[in-house]
Amino acid sequence: MTAAADGELRVIGLRGIPIVQPDDDIAELIVDAASAQGVGIEDGDAIAVTQRIVSRAEHQLRRLDEFEPSPFALEYADRTEKDPRVVEAVLRESTRVIRQVGGVLITETKHGFKCANAGVDGSNVGGEEFVSLLPVDPDASCERIRAGIAERTGADVAVIMTDTFGRPWRHGQTNVAIGVAGMLPFRDYVGENDMDGIELRVTTICVADQIAGTAELVMGKSDGVPVAIMRGYDYPRGNGSASEIVREMELDLFP
Amino acid sequence: MTAAADGELRVIGLRGIPIVQPDDDIAELIVDAASAQGVGIEDGDAIAVTQRIVSRAEHQLRRLDEFEPSPFALEYADRTEKDPRVVEAVLRESTRVIRQVGGVLITETKHGFKCANAGVDGSNVGGEEFVSLLPVDPDASCERIRAGIAERTGADVAVIMTDTFGRPWRHGQTNVAIGVAGMLPFRDYVGENDMDGIELRVTTICVADQIAGTAELVMGKSDGVPVAIMRGYDYPRGNGSASEIVREMELDLFP
Repeated sequence: MTAAADGELRVIGLRGIPIVQPDDDIAELIVDAASAQGVGIEDGDAIAVTQRIVSRAEHQLRRLDEFEPSPFALEYADRTEKDPRVVEAVLRESTRVIRQVGGVLITETKHGFKCANAGVDGSNVGGEEFVSLLPVDPDASCERIRAGIAERTGADVAVIMTDTFGRPWRHGQTNVAIGVAGMLPFRDYVGENDMDGIELRVTTICVADQIAGTAELVMGKSDGVPVAIMRGYDYPRGNGSASEIVREMELDLFP
Repeated sequence: MTAAADGELRVIGLRGIPIVQPDDDIAELIVDAASAQGVGIEDGDAIAVTQRIVSRAEHQLRRLDEFEPSPFALEYADRTEKDPRVVEAVLRESTRVIRQVGGVLITETKHGFKCANAGVDGSNVGGEEFVSLLPVDPDASCERIRAGIAERTGADVAVIMTDTFGRPWRHGQTNVAIGVAGMLPFRDYVGENDMDGIELRVTTICVADQIAGTAELVMGKSDGVPVAIMRGYDYPRGNGSASEIVREMELDLFP
Protein backbone atom coordinates (compact mmCIF):
# COMPACT_ATOMS: atom_id res chain seq x y z
CA MET A 1 0.00 0.00 0.00
CA THR A 2 1.40 3.37 -0.90
CA ALA A 3 0.76 6.28 1.43
CA ALA A 4 1.25 9.10 -1.04
CA ALA A 5 -0.85 8.62 -4.14
CA ASP A 6 2.02 8.98 -6.63
CA GLY A 7 4.83 9.11 -4.09
CA GLU A 8 4.73 12.91 -3.99
CA LEU A 9 2.99 15.35 -1.67
CA ARG A 10 2.45 19.06 -2.10
CA VAL A 11 2.01 21.24 0.95
CA ILE A 12 0.66 24.69 0.19
CA GLY A 13 0.47 27.50 2.75
CA LEU A 14 -2.56 29.75 2.30
CA ARG A 15 -1.76 33.43 2.55
CA GLY A 16 -4.13 36.34 2.46
CA ILE A 17 -6.54 35.08 5.12
CA PRO A 18 -7.52 38.23 7.03
CA ILE A 19 -7.35 38.55 10.81
CA VAL A 20 -10.30 36.38 11.85
CA GLN A 21 -13.15 38.01 13.75
CA PRO A 22 -15.82 36.42 15.98
CA ASP A 23 -18.44 34.54 13.94
CA ASP A 24 -16.32 34.59 10.79
CA ASP A 25 -16.91 31.53 8.62
CA ILE A 26 -13.56 29.73 8.50
CA ALA A 27 -14.65 27.49 5.61
CA GLU A 28 -15.52 30.54 3.53
CA LEU A 29 -12.19 32.21 4.36
CA ILE A 30 -10.31 29.05 3.33
CA VAL A 31 -12.21 28.58 0.08
CA ASP A 32 -11.77 32.25 -0.86
CA ALA A 33 -8.07 32.27 -0.01
CA ALA A 34 -7.43 29.03 -1.92
CA SER A 35 -9.28 30.45 -4.90
CA ALA A 36 -7.44 33.80 -4.75
CA GLN A 37 -4.14 31.91 -4.58
CA GLY A 38 -5.06 29.85 -7.62
CA VAL A 39 -4.79 26.48 -5.88
CA GLY A 40 -8.45 25.87 -5.15
CA ILE A 41 -9.73 22.98 -3.04
CA GLU A 42 -9.74 19.43 -4.42
CA ASP A 43 -11.20 16.09 -3.36
CA GLY A 44 -8.76 14.36 -1.05
CA ASP A 45 -7.04 17.49 0.18
CA ALA A 46 -6.02 17.37 3.86
CA ILE A 47 -6.50 20.91 5.18
CA ALA A 48 -4.68 21.93 8.36
CA VAL A 49 -6.04 24.92 10.25
CA THR A 50 -4.32 26.51 13.23
CA GLN A 51 -6.33 26.50 16.45
CA ARG A 52 -5.86 30.20 16.81
CA ILE A 53 -8.13 31.35 14.00
CA VAL A 54 -10.83 28.87 15.00
CA SER A 55 -10.69 30.12 18.58
CA ARG A 56 -11.10 33.70 17.32
CA ALA A 57 -14.14 32.76 15.23
CA GLU A 58 -15.67 30.81 18.13
CA HIS A 59 -15.40 33.63 20.70
CA GLN A 60 -12.54 31.89 22.54
CA LEU A 61 -10.45 35.06 22.41
CA ARG A 62 -11.17 36.37 25.90
CA ARG A 63 -10.43 39.50 27.84
CA LEU A 64 -8.07 38.79 30.73
CA ASP A 65 -10.43 40.75 33.01
CA GLU A 66 -12.85 37.82 32.78
CA PHE A 67 -10.53 35.74 34.92
CA GLU A 68 -10.70 36.73 38.58
CA PRO A 69 -7.70 34.97 40.09
CA SER A 70 -8.26 32.46 42.88
CA PRO A 71 -5.93 32.57 45.90
CA PHE A 72 -4.09 29.54 44.47
CA ALA A 73 -3.62 31.32 41.12
CA LEU A 74 -2.45 34.50 42.88
CA GLU A 75 0.10 32.64 44.98
CA TYR A 76 1.53 30.71 42.03
CA ALA A 77 1.56 33.76 39.75
CA ASP A 78 3.37 35.80 42.37
CA ARG A 79 5.99 33.08 42.89
CA THR A 80 6.59 32.65 39.12
CA GLU A 81 6.10 36.25 37.98
CA LYS A 82 3.17 35.29 35.76
CA ASP A 83 -0.02 37.23 35.16
CA PRO A 84 -2.43 35.80 37.77
CA ARG A 85 -5.33 36.22 35.33
CA VAL A 86 -3.54 34.03 32.79
CA VAL A 87 -2.85 31.42 35.48
CA GLU A 88 -6.54 31.54 36.41
CA ALA A 89 -7.53 31.03 32.77
CA VAL A 90 -5.20 28.02 32.54
CA LEU A 91 -6.64 26.45 35.69
CA ARG A 92 -10.23 26.99 34.52
CA GLU A 93 -9.41 25.23 31.22
CA SER A 94 -7.89 22.29 33.09
CA THR A 95 -9.25 19.20 34.80
CA ARG A 96 -6.00 18.40 36.62
CA VAL A 97 -2.43 19.57 37.07
CA ILE A 98 0.07 17.00 35.79
CA ARG A 99 3.26 18.87 36.65
CA GLN A 100 3.81 22.24 38.30
CA VAL A 101 7.53 22.90 38.51
CA GLY A 102 8.82 26.45 38.71
CA GLY A 103 7.15 28.37 35.90
CA VAL A 104 6.14 25.22 34.05
CA LEU A 105 2.48 24.30 34.39
CA ILE A 106 1.47 21.14 32.52
CA THR A 107 -2.19 20.24 32.84
CA GLU A 108 -4.84 18.04 31.31
CA THR A 109 -7.41 20.08 29.43
CA LYS A 110 -11.15 19.45 29.43
CA HIS A 111 -10.56 17.70 26.08
CA GLY A 112 -8.00 15.35 27.66
CA PHE A 113 -4.98 16.96 25.98
CA LYS A 114 -1.83 17.13 28.10
CA CYS A 115 0.09 20.32 27.39
CA ALA A 116 1.64 23.42 28.91
CA ASN A 117 -0.82 26.07 30.08
CA ALA A 118 -3.87 24.12 28.83
CA GLY A 119 -3.40 25.60 25.37
CA VAL A 120 -4.06 29.11 26.73
CA ASP A 121 -2.08 31.43 24.49
CA GLY A 122 -1.25 35.08 24.94
CA SER A 123 0.35 35.63 21.56
CA ASN A 124 -1.31 36.63 18.30
CA VAL A 125 -4.47 37.58 20.09
CA GLY A 126 -4.78 41.29 19.56
CA GLY A 127 -2.88 42.64 22.50
CA GLU A 128 -1.67 41.89 26.00
CA GLU A 129 -5.13 42.14 27.52
CA PHE A 130 -6.44 39.06 25.75
CA VAL A 131 -5.84 35.33 25.84
CA SER A 132 -6.83 32.65 23.37
CA LEU A 133 -8.49 29.51 24.74
CA LEU A 134 -8.73 26.27 22.78
CA PRO A 135 -12.03 25.67 20.97
CA VAL A 136 -14.59 23.91 23.18
CA ASP A 137 -14.94 20.95 20.77
CA PRO A 138 -12.18 20.97 18.14
CA ASP A 139 -13.46 17.83 16.40
CA ALA A 140 -16.88 19.45 15.94
CA SER A 141 -15.21 22.64 14.69
CA CYS A 142 -13.29 20.60 12.10
CA GLU A 143 -16.47 18.87 10.99
CA ARG A 144 -18.20 22.25 10.55
CA ILE A 145 -15.30 23.54 8.46
CA ARG A 146 -15.29 20.34 6.42
CA ALA A 147 -19.05 20.61 5.80
CA GLY A 148 -18.72 24.29 4.88
CA ILE A 149 -16.00 23.51 2.36
CA ALA A 150 -18.07 20.67 0.85
CA GLU A 151 -21.07 23.00 0.61
CA ARG A 152 -19.09 25.67 -1.24
CA THR A 153 -16.89 23.51 -3.44
CA GLY A 154 -18.35 20.00 -3.47
CA ALA A 155 -14.91 18.76 -2.41
CA ASP A 156 -14.59 15.89 0.06
CA VAL A 157 -11.65 16.90 2.26
CA ALA A 158 -10.13 16.11 5.64
CA VAL A 159 -9.71 18.93 8.16
CA ILE A 160 -7.08 18.86 10.90
CA MET A 161 -6.91 21.54 13.61
CA THR A 162 -3.35 22.10 14.83
CA ASP A 163 -1.78 23.41 17.98
CA THR A 164 1.83 23.54 19.14
CA PHE A 165 2.63 21.28 22.11
CA GLY A 166 5.79 20.32 23.93
CA ARG A 167 6.47 16.71 24.81
CA PRO A 168 8.44 14.72 27.37
CA TRP A 169 11.97 13.52 26.59
CA ARG A 170 12.63 15.70 23.55
CA HIS A 171 13.45 19.41 23.36
CA GLY A 172 11.37 21.68 21.19
CA GLN A 173 7.69 21.75 20.41
CA THR A 174 5.84 20.28 17.43
CA ASN A 175 2.43 20.82 15.89
CA VAL A 176 -0.10 18.12 16.72
CA ALA A 177 -3.71 17.48 15.76
CA ILE A 178 -6.26 18.65 18.33
CA GLY A 179 -9.20 18.28 15.95
CA VAL A 180 -9.87 15.91 13.06
CA ALA A 181 -12.73 15.45 10.60
CA GLY A 182 -13.13 13.49 7.38
CA MET A 183 -10.31 11.04 8.04
CA LEU A 184 -9.05 8.52 10.57
CA PRO A 185 -6.23 9.91 12.73
CA PHE A 186 -4.30 6.65 12.51
CA ARG A 187 -2.88 4.53 9.73
CA ASP A 188 -2.99 0.99 10.98
CA TYR A 189 -0.36 -1.50 9.86
CA VAL A 190 -1.69 -4.39 11.93
CA GLY A 191 -1.66 -7.57 9.87
CA GLU A 192 0.20 -5.99 6.98
CA ASN A 193 3.43 -7.71 6.16
CA ASP A 194 6.68 -5.92 5.69
CA MET A 195 9.18 -6.40 2.90
CA ASP A 196 10.25 -9.75 4.29
CA GLY A 197 6.76 -11.01 4.98
CA ILE A 198 7.17 -10.69 8.73
CA GLU A 199 4.23 -9.13 10.51
CA LEU A 200 5.17 -5.58 11.36
CA ARG A 201 5.94 -4.71 14.96
CA VAL A 202 4.98 -1.12 14.30
CA THR A 203 1.22 -1.17 14.22
CA THR A 204 -0.35 2.28 14.33
CA ILE A 205 0.98 5.60 13.04
CA CYS A 206 -0.71 8.82 14.11
CA VAL A 207 -0.78 10.34 10.66
CA ALA A 208 -2.98 13.23 11.85
CA ASP A 209 -0.15 14.44 14.09
CA GLN A 210 2.32 14.06 11.23
CA ILE A 211 0.06 16.13 8.95
CA ALA A 212 -0.13 18.78 11.69
CA GLY A 213 3.66 18.82 11.97
CA THR A 214 4.04 19.09 8.22
CA ALA A 215 1.66 22.04 8.19
CA GLU A 216 3.81 23.91 10.71
CA LEU A 217 6.68 23.85 8.23
CA VAL A 218 4.71 26.11 5.89
CA MET A 219 2.68 27.96 8.53
CA GLY A 220 5.54 29.02 10.75
CA LYS A 221 4.43 31.11 13.69
CA SER A 222 4.50 34.69 12.54
CA ASP A 223 3.80 34.54 8.85
CA GLY A 224 0.07 34.99 8.67
CA VAL A 225 -0.24 31.53 7.14
CA PRO A 226 -2.95 29.97 9.35
CA VAL A 227 -3.99 27.26 6.88
CA ALA A 228 -2.07 24.66 4.87
CA ILE A 229 -3.38 22.35 2.18
CA MET A 230 -1.74 18.92 1.84
CA ARG A 231 -2.38 17.54 -1.63
CA GLY A 232 -1.50 14.04 -2.78
CA TYR A 233 -1.69 12.21 0.53
CA ASP A 234 -4.06 9.26 0.54
CA TYR A 235 -5.15 9.68 4.16
CA PRO A 236 -7.10 6.88 5.89
CA ARG A 237 -10.76 7.45 5.07
CA GLY A 238 -13.46 7.38 7.71
CA ASN A 239 -15.13 9.45 10.39
CA GLY A 240 -12.30 9.87 12.86
CA SER A 241 -11.59 12.38 15.59
CA ALA A 242 -8.66 13.77 17.55
CA SER A 243 -10.33 12.61 20.76
CA GLU A 244 -9.28 9.09 19.70
CA ILE A 245 -5.66 10.20 19.94
CA VAL A 246 -5.98 11.04 23.63
CA ARG A 247 -4.49 8.21 25.67
CA GLU A 248 -6.76 7.30 28.56
CA MET A 249 -5.05 7.99 31.90
CA GLU A 250 -5.32 4.35 32.95
CA LEU A 251 -3.46 3.34 29.77
CA ASP A 252 -0.79 6.00 30.17
CA LEU A 253 2.58 5.16 31.74
CA PHE A 254 3.33 8.85 32.41
CA PRO A 255 0.16 10.21 34.07
CA MET B 1 10.19 35.23 8.08
CA THR B 2 8.61 32.61 5.90
CA ALA B 3 9.29 28.95 6.60
CA ALA B 4 8.59 27.58 3.14
CA ALA B 5 10.49 29.45 0.47
CA ASP B 6 7.46 30.18 -1.73
CA GLY B 7 4.83 28.86 0.64
CA GLU B 8 4.89 25.44 -0.99
CA LEU B 9 6.73 22.24 -0.17
CA ARG B 10 7.18 19.14 -2.26
CA VAL B 11 7.80 15.80 -0.56
CA ILE B 12 9.03 13.10 -2.90
CA GLY B 13 9.35 9.45 -1.92
CA LEU B 14 12.29 7.69 -3.55
CA ARG B 15 11.45 4.29 -4.95
CA GLY B 16 13.79 1.78 -6.52
CA ILE B 17 16.38 1.73 -3.75
CA PRO B 18 17.44 -1.93 -3.56
CA ILE B 19 17.55 -3.91 -0.32
CA VAL B 20 20.59 -2.42 1.37
CA GLN B 21 23.53 -4.70 2.12
CA PRO B 22 26.38 -4.24 4.63
CA ASP B 23 28.89 -1.58 3.50
CA ASP B 24 26.54 -0.23 0.82
CA ASP B 25 27.02 3.49 0.23
CA ILE B 26 23.72 5.09 1.18
CA ALA B 27 24.62 8.42 -0.45
CA GLU B 28 25.29 6.67 -3.73
CA LEU B 29 22.01 4.74 -3.54
CA ILE B 30 20.12 7.99 -2.88
CA VAL B 31 21.78 9.91 -5.69
CA ASP B 32 21.22 7.07 -8.16
CA ALA B 33 17.57 6.59 -7.15
CA ALA B 34 16.86 10.34 -7.32
CA SER B 35 18.46 10.46 -10.75
CA ALA B 36 16.60 7.38 -12.01
CA GLN B 37 13.34 8.92 -10.76
CA GLY B 38 14.10 12.15 -12.58
CA VAL B 39 14.00 14.37 -9.51
CA GLY B 40 17.72 14.62 -8.82
CA ILE B 41 19.18 16.27 -5.73
CA GLU B 42 19.16 20.06 -5.35
CA ASP B 43 20.75 22.58 -2.99
CA GLY B 44 18.51 23.04 0.01
CA ASP B 45 16.81 19.65 -0.18
CA ALA B 46 16.09 18.07 3.20
CA ILE B 47 16.58 14.33 2.74
CA ALA B 48 14.98 11.95 5.23
CA VAL B 49 16.43 8.44 5.46
CA THR B 50 14.87 5.66 7.49
CA GLN B 51 17.12 4.24 10.21
CA ARG B 52 16.61 0.75 8.90
CA ILE B 53 18.66 1.04 5.72
CA VAL B 54 21.47 2.85 7.54
CA SER B 55 21.56 0.10 10.17
CA ARG B 56 21.82 -2.50 7.39
CA ALA B 57 24.72 -0.66 5.76
CA GLU B 58 26.49 -0.23 9.10
CA HIS B 59 26.33 -3.89 10.12
CA GLN B 60 23.66 -3.25 12.75
CA LEU B 61 21.51 -6.02 11.36
CA ARG B 62 22.44 -8.76 13.80
CA ARG B 63 21.78 -12.46 14.17
CA LEU B 64 19.64 -13.17 17.22
CA ASP B 65 22.12 -15.89 18.22
CA GLU B 66 24.59 -13.13 19.17
CA PHE B 67 22.44 -12.27 22.16
CA GLU B 68 22.85 -14.81 24.95
CA PRO B 69 19.97 -13.98 27.29
CA SER B 70 20.78 -13.00 30.85
CA PRO B 71 18.68 -14.52 33.66
CA PHE B 72 16.78 -11.21 33.89
CA ALA B 73 16.04 -11.28 30.14
CA LEU B 74 14.96 -14.92 30.33
CA GLU B 75 12.59 -14.27 33.23
CA TYR B 76 11.00 -11.23 31.59
CA ALA B 77 10.74 -12.91 28.18
CA ASP B 78 9.10 -15.97 29.71
CA ARG B 79 6.58 -13.83 31.57
CA THR B 80 5.70 -11.75 28.49
CA GLU B 81 6.05 -14.43 25.79
CA LYS B 82 8.85 -12.52 24.05
CA ASP B 83 11.97 -13.93 22.41
CA PRO B 84 14.57 -13.78 25.21
CA ARG B 85 17.28 -12.99 22.64
CA VAL B 86 15.35 -9.91 21.50
CA VAL B 87 14.91 -8.84 25.14
CA GLU B 88 18.65 -9.29 25.64
CA ALA B 89 19.38 -7.17 22.57
CA VAL B 90 17.08 -4.43 23.89
CA LEU B 91 18.78 -4.43 27.31
CA ARG B 92 22.27 -4.33 25.77
CA GLU B 93 21.24 -1.29 23.70
CA SER B 94 19.90 0.47 26.80
CA THR B 95 21.43 2.45 29.62
CA ARG B 96 18.32 2.29 31.84
CA VAL B 97 14.78 0.97 31.94
CA ILE B 98 12.24 3.80 32.16
CA ARG B 99 9.09 1.68 32.30
CA GLN B 100 8.60 -2.08 32.25
CA VAL B 101 4.89 -2.80 32.41
CA GLY B 102 3.55 -6.08 31.06
CA GLY B 103 4.98 -6.49 27.58
CA VAL B 104 5.93 -2.82 27.29
CA LEU B 105 9.61 -2.10 27.78
CA ILE B 106 10.56 1.57 27.46
CA THR B 107 14.23 2.30 27.90
CA GLU B 108 16.82 5.00 27.37
CA THR B 109 19.22 4.08 24.57
CA LYS B 110 22.94 4.72 24.61
CA HIS B 111 22.17 7.79 22.47
CA GLY B 112 19.76 9.11 25.12
CA PHE B 113 16.59 8.38 23.12
CA LYS B 114 13.60 7.23 25.13
CA CYS B 115 11.58 4.66 23.19
CA ALA B 116 10.10 1.19 23.25
CA ASN B 117 12.60 -1.66 22.91
CA ALA B 118 15.57 0.70 22.47
CA GLY B 119 14.85 0.94 18.76
CA VAL B 120 15.54 -2.78 18.31
CA ASP B 121 13.37 -3.88 15.40
CA GLY B 122 12.52 -7.36 14.25
CA SER B 123 10.66 -6.33 11.11
CA ASN B 124 12.08 -5.75 7.64
CA VAL B 125 15.34 -7.37 8.61
CA GLY B 126 15.57 -10.41 6.42
CA GLY B 127 13.87 -13.00 8.55
CA GLU B 128 12.89 -13.94 12.07
CA GLU B 129 16.47 -14.77 13.07
CA PHE B 130 17.67 -11.18 12.79
CA VAL B 131 17.15 -7.90 14.59
CA SER B 132 18.02 -4.40 13.55
CA LEU B 133 19.82 -2.18 16.07
CA LEU B 134 19.98 1.61 15.78
CA PRO B 135 23.14 3.02 14.23
CA VAL B 136 25.88 3.64 16.79
CA ASP B 137 26.11 7.37 15.97
CA PRO B 138 23.16 8.49 13.82
CA ASP B 139 24.39 12.11 13.61
CA ALA B 140 27.73 10.93 12.22
CA SER B 141 25.91 8.63 9.78
CA CYS B 142 23.85 11.59 8.54
CA GLU B 143 26.99 13.68 8.11
CA ARG B 144 28.63 10.91 6.06
CA ILE B 145 25.55 10.64 3.83
CA ARG B 146 25.46 14.42 3.46
CA ALA B 147 29.15 14.52 2.53
CA GLY B 148 28.69 11.66 0.06
CA ILE B 149 25.80 13.46 -1.63
CA ALA B 150 27.82 16.70 -1.82
CA GLU B 151 30.75 14.79 -3.30
CA ARG B 152 28.61 13.22 -6.03
CA THR B 153 26.29 16.11 -6.86
CA GLY B 154 27.81 19.28 -5.38
CA ALA B 155 24.47 19.84 -3.64
CA ASP B 156 24.37 21.27 -0.12
CA VAL B 157 21.58 19.34 1.59
CA ALA B 158 20.32 18.46 5.07
CA VAL B 159 20.04 14.80 6.05
CA ILE B 160 17.60 13.57 8.71
CA MET B 161 17.59 9.96 9.92
CA THR B 162 14.12 8.85 10.98
CA ASP B 163 12.75 6.21 13.29
CA THR B 164 9.23 5.52 14.53
CA PHE B 165 8.68 6.17 18.24
CA GLY B 166 5.66 6.12 20.52
CA ARG B 167 5.11 8.93 23.00
CA PRO B 168 3.36 9.50 26.31
CA TRP B 169 -0.18 10.88 26.41
CA ARG B 170 -1.10 10.30 22.76
CA HIS B 171 -1.98 7.07 20.98
CA GLY B 172 -0.11 6.08 17.87
CA GLN B 173 3.51 6.44 16.89
CA THR B 174 5.15 9.12 14.77
CA ASN B 175 8.44 9.40 12.91
CA VAL B 176 11.06 11.48 14.69
CA ALA B 177 14.62 12.54 13.90
CA ILE B 178 17.33 10.35 15.45
CA GLY B 179 20.09 11.83 13.31
CA VAL B 180 20.59 15.27 11.77
CA ALA B 181 23.28 16.84 9.58
CA GLY B 182 23.48 20.05 7.58
CA MET B 183 20.75 21.91 9.47
CA LEU B 184 19.74 22.97 12.95
CA PRO B 185 17.05 20.69 14.43
CA PHE B 186 15.15 23.66 15.87
CA ARG B 187 13.57 26.78 14.47
CA ASP B 188 13.84 29.38 17.16
CA TYR B 189 11.19 32.06 17.49
CA VAL B 190 12.72 33.75 20.53
CA GLY B 191 12.59 37.49 20.11
CA GLU B 192 10.50 37.37 16.96
CA ASN B 193 7.24 39.21 17.24
CA ASP B 194 3.94 37.78 16.21
CA MET B 195 1.25 39.44 14.13
CA ASP B 196 0.36 41.79 16.97
CA GLY B 197 3.93 42.63 17.88
CA ILE B 198 3.80 40.70 21.15
CA GLU B 199 6.83 38.55 21.83
CA LEU B 200 5.86 34.95 21.06
CA ARG B 201 5.33 32.56 23.95
CA VAL B 202 6.16 29.64 21.66
CA THR B 203 9.91 29.77 21.32
CA THR B 204 11.41 26.68 19.76
CA ILE B 205 9.95 24.28 17.20
CA CYS B 206 11.66 20.94 16.57
CA VAL B 207 11.46 21.15 12.79
CA ALA B 208 13.70 18.09 12.38
CA ASP B 209 11.02 15.92 14.02
CA GLN B 210 8.35 17.52 11.83
CA ILE B 211 10.40 16.76 8.71
CA ALA B 212 10.74 13.15 9.92
CA GLY B 213 6.97 12.93 10.43
CA THR B 214 6.33 14.39 7.00
CA ALA B 215 8.65 11.82 5.46
CA GLU B 216 6.65 8.96 7.00
CA LEU B 217 3.61 10.10 5.03
CA VAL B 218 5.37 9.18 1.80
CA MET B 219 7.54 6.36 3.14
CA GLY B 220 4.84 4.36 4.84
CA LYS B 221 6.14 1.19 6.42
CA SER B 222 5.92 -1.50 3.78
CA ASP B 223 6.37 0.35 0.51
CA GLY B 224 10.06 0.08 -0.11
CA VAL B 225 10.32 3.88 0.10
CA PRO B 226 13.20 4.30 2.58
CA VAL B 227 14.10 7.86 1.53
CA ALA B 228 12.08 11.06 1.07
CA ILE B 229 13.23 14.36 -0.36
CA MET B 230 11.62 17.54 1.02
CA ARG B 231 12.06 20.36 -1.48
CA GLY B 232 11.15 23.99 -0.86
CA TYR B 233 11.61 24.11 2.89
CA ASP B 234 14.02 26.77 4.09
CA TYR B 235 15.36 24.77 7.03
CA PRO B 236 17.47 26.51 9.69
CA ARG B 237 21.07 26.45 8.44
CA GLY B 238 23.93 25.37 10.64
CA ASN B 239 25.77 22.34 11.95
CA GLY B 240 23.11 20.79 14.16
CA SER B 241 22.57 17.29 15.51
CA ALA B 242 19.76 15.11 16.81
CA SER B 243 21.66 14.70 20.07
CA GLU B 244 20.60 18.31 20.81
CA ILE B 245 16.97 17.15 20.76
CA VAL B 246 17.53 14.73 23.64
CA ARG B 247 16.23 16.31 26.85
CA GLU B 248 18.72 15.83 29.68
CA MET B 249 17.23 13.72 32.46
CA GLU B 250 17.63 16.50 35.01
CA LEU B 251 15.56 18.78 32.77
CA ASP B 252 12.89 16.17 32.11
CA LEU B 253 9.68 16.15 34.11
CA PHE B 254 8.91 12.55 33.10
CA PRO B 255 12.17 10.65 33.72
